[in-house]
Amino acid sequence: MSELYPAEVLINSATGAVSPATGRYAKHLSELGGIFSNADAWSRTIREENDPLIYEVLEYKQEGSDLFFGTTTMQPGKIGDEFYMTRGHFHEDRTKGEVYNTLSGQGLLLLEDRQGRSSTIEMREGSSAFIPPDWAHRSINCGPAPLVFTWFCSVAAGHDYGQILQQGMRKLVIERNGEIEVVANPKFD
Amino acid sequence: MSELYPAEVLINSATGAVSPATGRYAKHLSELGGIFSNADAWSRTIREENDPLIYEVLEYKQEGSDLFFGTTTMQPGKIGDEFYMTRGHFHEDRTKGEVYNTLSGQGLLLLEDRQGRSSTIEMREGSSAFIPPDWAHRSINCGPAPLVFTWFCSVAAGHDYGQILQQGMRKLVIERNGEIEVVANPKFD
Repeated sequence: MSELYPAEVLINSATGAVSPATGRYAKHLSELGGIFSNADAWSRTIREENDPLIYEVLEYKQEGSDLFFGTTTMQPGKIGDEFYMTRGHFHEDRTKGEVYNTLSGQGLLLLEDRQGRSSTIEMREGSSAFIPPDWAHRSINCGPAPLVFTWFCSVAAGHDYGQILQQGMRKLVIERNGEIEVVANPKFD
Repeated sequence: MSELYPAEVLINSATGAVSPATGRYAKHLSELGGIFSNADAWSRTIREENDPLIYEVLEYKQEGSDLFFGTTTMQPGKIGDEFYMTRGHFHEDRTKGEVYNTLSGQGLLLLEDRQGRSSTIEMREGSSAFIPPDWAHRSINCGPAPLVFTWFCSVAAGHDYGQILQQGMRKLVIERNGEIEVVANPKFD
């Protein structure tokens, strides 16, 4: 095991900047094929808006630790009537949950278990979400500004994107007549 | 395993209130015997200030989850020249670390490993602390207002107060001439 050491990590609640960060990845719209219902709007937006950044993940991890944490910063926007969202995933290790803490912006956390039960949790400043083990989770930015949240997780959790990428989740979060609505995903009819 | 469910948990960054909380404990000065260097000031403060509250811990935990989290809210004050502080502890499970995130106030996180190395991390709004497995940690309120922080931890971590309660930590955090100083604990001379 490598040598672990105490560290201060600064987190900017408006930008999601993590300092120091040990890892980063970003997802642009072209990398999120298949997760939005409206494929025409998806390809048109990639073309017209030059493949916009949808979200960025920054993390702080020390090799050999049991826990790690970081931020996700989601840009505002829609593809058709669906809000920008993350891919959504289960954890590979089904015994590992996660905690989110929203720093700024507003959104919805959409959850779903293996039995197909759905749940949503509001994301807003000062609200934390307890994500139980074996519940898939997807974050959705429903507001006009970036949605920034911290997450705390076991390093052993891992990601299982497969099921959600293939089938989607059972609920969609859309804007209709200026209202945020959680509706059934017609793919599951 | 009991049924786990997604939950929104509201955290007040000024008061440390957790809603809903599933557990709570508070420490008054009389319950912190032996951790302050100045025993006379300790007993006098208990008497004159009617055994003041030093800190309160609120938690959110679901039975069967791998992670839990909560807040610690520390009152400002001193015993002699030493700032109010928590008891300080190692985790019982030496493979489990912890993450702190300061919401308001200002303080120092004092850490120490089994080999006697010490470290401090500043606690201030927007700063997180990575506490590696097997580093003892104690929070110290060095400011004039309550120090409020969230913590995220494995439910399996457990507490090992024994060594710190008996020997103290190798450093003391005191106020001298209006300045915050980290000095050697004379008990370890």
